Amino acid sequence: MKKILVIGGVAAGLKAAAKARRCDSQASITVLERGKIISYGACGMPYYVGGDVNDIDDLMKTPVGVLRSPGYFKNAKDITVLTQTEAMAIDRDSKVVTVKNLATGEDDTLPYDKLVIATGASAIKPSLPGVELGNIYSLWHPDDAKAIRQGIEAGKFNRAIIIGAGLVGMEMAEALTKQQLQVTVVEMKDQVFPAFLDPEIAGVVSKYAAEKGINLLAAEKVEAFIGETEVTAVKTDKRTIPADLVVLAIGARPNVELARAAGLTIGTTGAISVDDEMRTSDPDIYAGGDCVENINIMSGQKVFAPMGSTANKHGRVIGENLCGGHVKFKGVLNTVIAKVHSLTVGKTGLSERDAKQLGYDYITVMVAGPDKPHYMGAKSITIKLIADANTRKVLGMQAVGEGEVAKRVDVAAAVLTMGGTIDDLFDIDLSYAPPYNSPIDNLAVAANAVMNKLAGKFNGISPITAKEKMQTGKAVFLDVRTPDECKQIRLADCPNIKYIPLGQLRSRLAELNKADEIVAFCKISLRGYEAEGFLEGAGFENVKVLEGGIVSWPFACEKEE
Amino acid sequence: MKKILVIGGVAAGLKAAAKARRCDSQASITVLERGKIISYGACGMPYYVGGDVNDIDDLMKTPVGVLRSPGYFKNAKDITVLTQTEAMAIDRDSKVVTVKNLATGEDDTLPYDKLVIATGASAIKPSLPGVELGNIYSLWHPDDAKAIRQGIEAGKFNRAIIIGAGLVGMEMAEALTKQQLQVTVVEMKDQVFPAFLDPEIAGVVSKYAAEKGINLLAAEKVEAFIGETEVTAVKTDKRTIPADLVVLAIGARPNVELARAAGLTIGTTGAISVDDEMRTSDPDIYAGGDCVENINIMSGQKVFAPMGSTANKHGRVIGENLCGGHVKFKGVLNTVIAKVHSLTVGKTGLSERDAKQLGYDYITVMVAGPDKPHYMGAKSITIKLIADANTRKVLGMQAVGEGEVAKRVDVAAAVLTMGGTIDDLFDIDLSYAPPYNSPIDNLAVAANAVMNKLAGKFNGISPITAKEKMQTGKAVFLDVRTPDECKQIRLADCPNIKYIPLGQLRSRLAELNKADEIVAFCKISLRGYEAEGFLEGAGFENVKVLEGGIVSWPFACEKEE
Ligand SMILES: Cc1cc2nc3c(=O)[nH]c(=O)nc-3n(C[C@H](O)[C@H](O)[C@H](O)COP(=O)(O)OP(=O)(O)OC[C@H]3O[C@@H](n4cnc5c(N)ncnc54)[C@H](O)[C@@H]3O)c2cc1C
Ligand SMILES: Cc1cc2nc3c(=O)[nH]c(=O)nc-3n(C[C@H](O)[C@H](O)[C@H](O)COP(=O)(O)OP(=O)(O)OC[C@H]3O[C@@H](n4cnc5c(N)ncnc54)[C@H](O)[C@@H]3O)c2cc1C
Ligand SMILES: CC(C)(COP(=O)(O)OP(=O)(O)OC[C@H]1O[C@@H](n2cnc3c(N)ncnc32)[C@H](O)[C@@H]1OP(=O)(O)O)[C@@H](O)C(=O)NCCC(=O)NCCS
Ligand SMILES: CC(C)(COP(=O)(O)OP(=O)(O)OC[C@H]1O[C@@H](n2cnc3c(N)ncnc32)[C@H](O)[C@@H]1OP(=O)(O)O)[C@@H](O)C(=O)NCCC(=O)NCCS
Ligand SMILES: [Ca+2]
Ligand SMILES: [Ca+2]
Repeated sequence: MKKILVIGGVAAGLKAAAKARRCDSQASITVLERGKIISYGACGMPYYVGGDVNDIDDLMKTPVGVLRSPGYFKNAKDITVLTQTEAMAIDRDSKVVTVKNLATGEDDTLPYDKLVIATGASAIKPSLPGVELGNIYSLWHPDDAKAIRQGIEAGKFNRAIIIGAGLVGMEMAEALTKQQLQVTVVEMKDQVFPAFLDPEIAGVVSKYAAEKGINLLAAEKVEAFIGETEVTAVKTDKRTIPADLVVLAIGARPNVELARAAGLTIGTTGAISVDDEMRTSDPDIYAGGDCVENINIMSGQKVFAPMGSTANKHGRVIGENLCGGHVKFKGVLNTVIAKVHSLTVGKTGLSERDAKQLGYDYITVMVAGPDKPHYMGAKSITIKLIADANTRKVLGMQAVGEGEVAKRVDVAAAVLTMGGTIDDLFDIDLSYAPPYNSPIDNLAVAANAVMNKLAGKFNGISPITAKEKMQTGKAVFLDVRTPDECKQIRLADCPNIKYIPLGQLRSRLAELNKADEIVAFCKISLRGYEAEGFLEGAGFENVKVLEGGIVSWPFACEKEE
Repeated sequence: MKKILVIGGVAAGLKAAAKARRCDSQASITVLERGKIISYGACGMPYYVGGDVNDIDDLMKTPVGVLRSPGYFKNAKDITVLTQTEAMAIDRDSKVVTVKNLATGEDDTLPYDKLVIATGASAIKPSLPGVELGNIYSLWHPDDAKAIRQGIEAGKFNRAIIIGAGLVGMEMAEALTKQQLQVTVVEMKDQVFPAFLDPEIAGVVSKYAAEKGINLLAAEKVEAFIGETEVTAVKTDKRTIPADLVVLAIGARPNVELARAAGLTIGTTGAISVDDEMRTSDPDIYAGGDCVENINIMSGQKVFAPMGSTANKHGRVIGENLCGGHVKFKGVLNTVIAKVHSLTVGKTGLSERDAKQLGYDYITVMVAGPDKPHYMGAKSITIKLIADANTRKVLGMQAVGEGEVAKRVDVAAAVLTMGGTIDDLFDIDLSYAPPYNSPIDNLAVAANAVMNKLAGKFNGISPITAKEKMQTGKAVFLDVRTPDECKQIRLADCPNIKYIPLGQLRSRLAELNKADEIVAFCKISLRGYEAEGFLEGAGFENVKVLEGGIVSWPFACEKEE
C-alpha cells in the first residue's frame, strides 16, 4: 500500500490528496496541517469582511453546505487529515517527515513513499516601527478575517488604512467602504495594481475608486505605525494619517524553509522549483500551490504567481502524477481579476510594461464600448490589447469597467493559451444575442483597432500621451460628440478644445486648421476615429485619436452640476 | 471616383458601406433599401415586444441616442441611402442595377463599379389553410413588432400560439409570458431548439420553460389556422387550440432571387455562394449577411446560418475588400445563445448529432456545477462537451443554466476556432476571484470529466440513457446526497432507488449488491462520480454515473410540498 504524505491542508494539498484518492482507491493518504482549520477559501475573506458572506464557515463548506472538516475528508474521501500538526523536517534518505503535534508538543515521524509540499505562502510583514501594535492585521487566515469583522461589528473601527493597492488591498478597500469605514489606501508605487496593470488602465480604476470614497495615496511610503498598544496613526513619507485599523496587503512570500532545509532546489523567484509534472528536484517529492514558482507561458520566464486557481490545478496534476500519471502543468498567464464595488478589472498575459521589458516590437490599443446593445442597459468596458507588431500574436489584454469584463478576459486567456493572433480574435464566432453582447464583440473591436493601427488608419494615442499634449496647450482637442453629451461631461483643464459634432464636421471644416495637431475624441472615440478618417481624407496630416475617449479618461472631467 | 452600390440597408449592407467609407474617403457609396426604415436591430425586437425596450426607435439608434436615419448616414458617414427603393435587376455586363422607387413607382438605373448584395432573408410562411388570417405574424420587421405590441397594449391578445421552438420562437415565448399572455409553443420536432441542441440539454430548457408557464407541445404539427377574419384557433395533428395571436417562427429563407436572376452561383444550401473574401461568382459583386451561405469551420460544410453577428462581420470584410483589401472571412461555428427568462442556453461547434452524422469517433460528457463559489450566490450551469475520442480535439459545446453561460460558450468558441483539445481547455489560465468563478472553472471540470471518461475512470451516462434504465426497473439508482437534500427534491418514477449519503457509503456497503447495475448520482453528480470510484475500488464492476445529476435531469422530480 502506497503511503502518500501531504504537507499543507488548504487548496493545493487537499486537492492533491483528493485527486490521488480518485486515482488510487487503496493508497494511504495523510495530510498534515499546522493550523486548526483546513480547506478554507481564503479568496472569500474580503466578502466576509465586507458583509456579503455572513458565516465564515461558509468558506469551508461544500456547495451543499457540508463542512470540509477532517471528519468529512475521512468519511467522504478516506483521507486522514492531522490538524495542529507541523512538519518540522524532511529526511529524504529515509523518506520520513518529522512532525510536531502543536497541541501536545509531541514529536513523531511519518514515513512516505511520495511526499507533497503544499505549504503555501505567508503575508509579508514590513519591518517598520510599530508594526506589532494592536489592530494591525494581514488578511491571510480566517482568524484575521474574523478579528477584523468582530472589530467592525463592535464599532471599534472608523478609519482604516490599507497598505498596498494590489488585489487584497483593493478588495479590502471595497469591503471596508461597504462597512462604512473611512478608507485610505497607501501605495508605494505610483498606481493601483502596480504588479499587473498599465498606468492608463490603473487610472480608470483609481478614478472610480475615488468616486466610491476610497482615498488613494499613491507614490507614498509608509514609515511607521504610531500608537501605545493599539495603532492610532500611520506615518508616511508625506504625512501622518490617523487610523484605528490597519490592513497590511503588500504581498506574500512562499513558505520554502522546509524544502530548503531538505536540500530541494529553490528557484530564482524564491519559490520551490518544479518541473512540468510538478516534481521538485527529488523525484519522490512533488510541490504545488503558493510555495512553488510557475512558468509564464507568454514570456517563458519563471514567476511567483500565488493564486487559488493555480493551486487547485497544481493539486489535480500532482494527485494524478502521485499515482503514476504523467500529466503536465502548462503554466500561467498571470491572469487576475478583481472586483472593486461594481467595477471589474482584469488582465491576462503580458502588460505593456512586460512587453517592453522583454524587447518585443509591440503595438497596443485601448478601446471603450458598451458591453451589449444600449437598449439592453449596457455598461461600458475598456479593453487594452498588447500585440506583437510583426507576428500579430496577442501578447496580453487588460480590461476594466462596470460591464461584463470577466468574459472578455477569459476569451483572451483562451486565445493567448493557444498562441492566437489579433486576426484569430476577430475570427471567433462569439455568441451574440442582445442580452449578452453586441454583434461585434468588444474584443473583436479591439482586435480591429489594432489592425487599423497597423494599417495606418487609426492614429490612436493613449490618454497619458494625450494628457502631456494637452498640457503643452499646442494640440487642438476636437470633441466630436453631440452638444447634449458635451453639456453633461467634458475633459477638464484642456486649454485648447473645440466642439464640433461628427455630423457637422464636413460643413464646419473651415473652423479647423490643417497645420494644427488635432486630437479627436468622443465618448469612446469611435466617432473620434471616424473624424480622423474624414479629416485625413480632407488633407489634414496630423490627426490623432484619444484612445478610450471620455469613458476611459483617467484624469479629471467637468460635469454638469 | 469609385462607385459602390449596396443592395439592402440593414446589417451587412450598411456595415459594408460604413467600412468602405473608412477605407476610401473619396468613393461614392449608395445603399438601396426597399423598406421605409433602415439599420434596425431586428434581434432586439423580442425585447421590445416583451417590454424591456419601450421605444422601437431605440433599435435604430446609436449608443448615444442618434437615430440612424438616411440623414445620419449622409452627415456622419457621407453615405447616400435610398429607402423605398427596390433593386429589380442586376445587369452584370453593363454594370448597372435597375431600381424601382416604391413611393412613385418610377424606374431608374444606377451604375456601379463594385456591387454588394445584402438582401437578407425572409421569414418562412407555411402554406397552410388560414395563414392569411388577421393576428398571425412573423416577427421579422419592426412593423411586426409594433403591431404585436400594440395589440398587447390594446388588450387584444390573451392566448398566443407560437409556431416553432427555435431562437425567435423561444425568445417570443419569454416576451409574451412576460406580457402575461397564455403561451403555447407548437414544435414539429420532438424538442426545443431542434436545430442546434442535443435532446438532453433541450430537455433542461423545456423543463424550465414549463415552470415559467410556457406550454410546449413538441412533436406536434400545425395543420391549419381557424377563424373568420382573425385567427381564433390553431389546428394541429393532435388537437385544436384556441388562440387570438399566432407568431410564426419556423425559420427563414435567404433572399436570392435577384442574385439568381443575375446568374450568380447559388450554393447547395439555397443561399448565395461566396468565396473566403465574400465575393460571389462575379468578381465585382460581393455578398454578405443572411443571403449568403457560410462555411462551418468544424465540419468544413456549407451552412445557412443567418446571424446578426455574422452579417456585421461579413459587412466589415466586404467593406475592406471593396477598397482593394484581401481580408478573409474564416467561417462560423454556428454559435448561438438565447435567453428564456433567467435561463441562458448556448451552443458552439458541433452537436452530438452533427458529430455522429460526420462520422467522428466522439465522446461526450455533461457536467453540472455552480458558476462560482456557493457563498457568492452561485447559480447552476450545465455544460455538454463533445470531443474527438482520438485526437482529443473539442468538437462542440452546449451550455444551459441560470448561471453565467455566455462566458463559457465564448471561451469554448475561442478554443474551437483555434482547433484546441480538451487538454487546452484545462490549461487556460482563466480568471478567478469569487465574484466571477470557481478556482477550477466549469469548462475545465467538463474537460477533466472527458479525460476521466477516456481514462475509464468516469463511467458517465446521459440522462436519456439513464431514464431508459430506470424504466426497466433493473438498475439500482444510488442517490448519495445528504438526507436534507433528498427531502427537498428527488427523481420521480424511479422504481429501484437507494439513498446512501456519500459519507456513509463506506460503512453501509453491505446494503448494495456487487452483481447489480448501479447508477450513482447526486445534485450535480460530483459525489456520484466519487461514489463510482469508491465502489469500483471495493470490487463493484457495473457502476455508472448519471451525468449532470438532479440539476440537469430533464424528466420529472418529486419536490417537498
Ligand atoms: C485575502 C485573499 C484573497 C485572495 N483572493 C484570491 C483570488 O481572488 N483569486 C485567486 O486565484 N487567489 C486568491 N488568493 C490566493 C489563494 O488563497 C491562494 O493562492 C491559495 O490559498 C494557495 O493555496 P495553497 O494550498 O498553495 O496554500 P495555503 O492556502 O497558504 O495553504 C498552505 C497551508 O500549509 C500549511 N503549512 C505551511 N507549512 C506547514 C508545515 N510545515 N506543516 C504543516 N502545515 C504547514 C499552512 O498552515 C497553510 O494552511 C487570495 C488570498 C487571500 C489571502
Ligand atoms: C426576431 C429576431 C431575432 C434575432 N435575434 C438574433 C440574435 O439574437 N443573434 C443574431 O446573431 N441574429 C439574430 N437575428 C438575425 C439578424 O437579425 C439577422 O441575421 C440580420 O438582420 C441579417 O442582416 P442582413 O443585413 O444580412 O439582412 P436583413 O436584416 O434581412 O436586411 C436585408 C435588407 O435588404 C432589403 N432588401 C432585400 N431585397 C432588396 C432589394 N431587392 N432591393 C432593396 N432592398 C432589398 C430588405 O428589405 C432588408 O431590409 C434575429 C432576427 C430576428 C428576426
Ligand atoms: C475542495 C478540495 C478539497 C478538493 O477536493 P476535490 O474532491 O478535488 O474537489 P471537488 O469536490 O470540486 O471535486 C472535483 C472532482 O469532481 C469532478 N467533478 C466536478 N463536477 C462534476 C460533475 N458535475 N460530474 C462529474 N464529475 C464532476 C471533477 O472533475 C473532479 O474530479 P477529477 O479531479 O478526478 O477530474 C480542495 O480544492 C480544497 O480544499 N479547496 C478549498 C480551498 C481552496 O481551494 N482555496 C483556494 C481558493 S479560495
Ligand atoms: C451600425 C452600422 C451602420 C455599421 O456602422 P459602423 O460605422 O461600421 O459601426 P460602428 O458605429 O459600430 O463603428 C465601428 C467602427 O468603429 C471602430 N471602433 C469601435 N469602437 C471604437 C473605439 N472605442 N475606438 C476606436 N475605434 C472604435 C470599429 O473598429 C469599427 O471600425 P473598423 O470597422 O474600421 O475597424 C451597421 O452595422 C448597422 O446598421 N447595424 C444595425 C443593424 C444590425 O446590426 N442588425 C443586426 C443585429 S440586431
Ligand atoms: Ca491615419
Ligand atoms: Ca470506472
